[in-house]
Amino acid sequence: MAVKMILDCDTGVDDAMAIMYAALHPDVELLAATTVWGNVEVPLATRNTLRVLDLVGRGDVPVAEGAAGPIAGGPAEYAYDVHGRDGQGGAADHEPVRAAAPVGAAQQIVDLVRAHPGEVWIVPVGPLTNIAAALAIAPELPGLVAGVSLMGGAALAPGNVTPVAEANIWHDAEAAAAVFRAPWRIVMAGLDVTMKILITEEHRARLAAAGEAGRYLARILEHYGEFYRERAFGTWACAMHDTVAVAAAAGALDVRLAPVVHVEVDTSGGPGHGQTIADLRGVYRGYPEQAGAHCSVLLDVDGRIADEAVELIVAHGAPRAGSGVGR
Amino acid sequence: MAVKMILDCDTGVDDAMAIMYAALHPDVELLAATTVWGNVEVPLATRNTLRVLDLVGRGDVPVAEGAAGPIAGGPAEYAYDVHGRDGQGGAADHEPVRAAAPVGAAQQIVDLVRAHPGEVWIVPVGPLTNIAAALAIAPELPGLVAGVSLMGGAALAPGNVTPVAEANIWHDAEAAAAVFRAPWRIVMAGLDVTMKILITEEHRARLAAAGEAGRYLARILEHYGEFYRERAFGTWACAMHDTVAVAAAAGALDVRLAPVVHVEVDTSGGPGHGQTIADLRGVYRGYPEQAGAHCSVLLDVDGRIADEAVELIVAHGAPRAGSGVGR
Repeated sequence: MAVKMILDCDTGVDDAMAIMYAALHPDVELLAATTVWGNVEVPLATRNTLRVLDLVGRGDVPVAEGAAGPIAGGPAEYAYDVHGRDGQGGAADHEPVRAAAPVGAAQQIVDLVRAHPGEVWIVPVGPLTNIAAALAIAPELPGLVAGVSLMGGAALAPGNVTPVAEANIWHDAEAAAAVFRAPWRIVMAGLDVTMKILITEEHRARLAAAGEAGRYLARILEHYGEFYRERAFGTWACAMHDTVAVAAAAGALDVRLAPVVHVEVDTSGGPGHGQTIADLRGVYRGYPEQAGAHCSVLLDVDGRIADEAVELIVAHGAPRAGSGVGR
Repeated sequence: MAVKMILDCDTGVDDAMAIMYAALHPDVELLAATTVWGNVEVPLATRNTLRVLDLVGRGDVPVAEGAAGPIAGGPAEYAYDVHGRDGQGGAADHEPVRAAAPVGAAQQIVDLVRAHPGEVWIVPVGPLTNIAAALAIAPELPGLVAGVSLMGGAALAPGNVTPVAEANIWHDAEAAAAVFRAPWRIVMAGLDVTMKILITEEHRARLAAAGEAGRYLARILEHYGEFYRERAFGTWACAMHDTVAVAAAAGALDVRLAPVVHVEVDTSGGPGHGQTIADLRGVYRGYPEQAGAHCSVLLDVDGRIADEAVELIVAHGAPRAGSGVGR
């Protein structure tokens, strides 16, 4: 049985890969994509999401546009330096795209979850504004979902916006606080693991030699990998980030260590603002159970998920054995 | 040349070991001990400090009593559960002790640093109240010391009072903020290393079979190790904590990784209050230089310092070769 999924994204380079992965994975039934401000302005996130879905032949997946800024108001800050002015590393094309769904992201999430009680994984890979809005619309949501698998936060690893805060959480800490407080199962794919799962030059070459979707991804990754060369790794490589959260929800991730612990988001406005404060004090005795804790913090996962994700996208559009015709 | 040192302590079980180590180490010239509230009330810290110095034959080291509570006022909270009601694991003796020095801790620190400009290492192993007070008395202090080697904080490791805050910093975050802000060289021996350097049952047996000081230390460690058995390690063992900061200042620590980075103390009153926010975002590229940073955060050190510290104390009071008489 495929996992029913709603992917909430601020597309973004790594989001594009996550969309392809979710749209193509045989174990995922992608009910909808919803879009949110974050890496880029939300209309651009919507356009990129629609385009990427078309590239993998998934014009059937509805895309609902969501929040244009933080849930508590205040200015939206974007990450154009990381993702390029078009959110696609400066390599987006100008193909026409279909229209977004005639429903807002938060309502779309609520409607789909209500239609499939207990079955849907919500996978947010941008700021958590839409998810907090969905909770505001439908406070019963936590009892109706299978879980929330999100890319965001940092437990033991350093942050990437401040020394302790990761971008998706920092961009809308108040929304994140609401999401972490709600009593649903959360899987936190934070920088502890996402900075260790790398798309390499070799991966990019594989994609560049593949079908249209792979070639598109190879193009948009170029600038992103240069950003990471300068700011993190000293060599061309991309943190895979968002795809990790999708893979976790799909059951495709080999998880080696993910203690279930209390996590609180710092909304103090102090130097720790936007930090996901995970209670990992049990590290010295194998993380004993914490009553009421409902967040699995991914601390160690098998990095081969990067190879698998790349191969899934490479396989799309490859000539089928015996047919000679692209899929 | 021995390192001139002032040890500022809230004695405390692990403090007692640190005092013995500093008092006996051939490379340390212990100018004074100063005492501070923290593990216990300050008069008790003073008594314990005086007694421990006497036990190692160092009645010559002046002990100046300091602050009885946090620098910004507010209630003092102690750690009697960890250190016992007498601060010595319930195993303190009742031997008479000499009087403390007729000068306050902060003034003592300032006077000694002024007397030996550029030479003194201040080694605080409790809350940083006295050090902040010394900075208030003498703002020129940072230019006059060799450095500050402190036990406190947590960079990548979890905290021990909250998920992110370590006790010495959390107890007086405002004082700690002042100390980390001052432009002196700081070595931060935090939980990243001090929770990994353990006094084991074997060490305790060595001490119990040694002279008076060793036997005293073996006795007071018992309760402390039981605390750690229950709260951290699942087996009898003591985090060596304070001695690590002394060893670092003495040049006796084999330091494998200690990036020099910006560190800010969270005084927000939020869930991150008391955290030492160290900017370790350079982890992915070998910690490039940070302009103006002046704090070395110990992240990896050779754990054999525990054996060395134990042996130094065991050697004291052992029969001298050829003499048959205790030292």
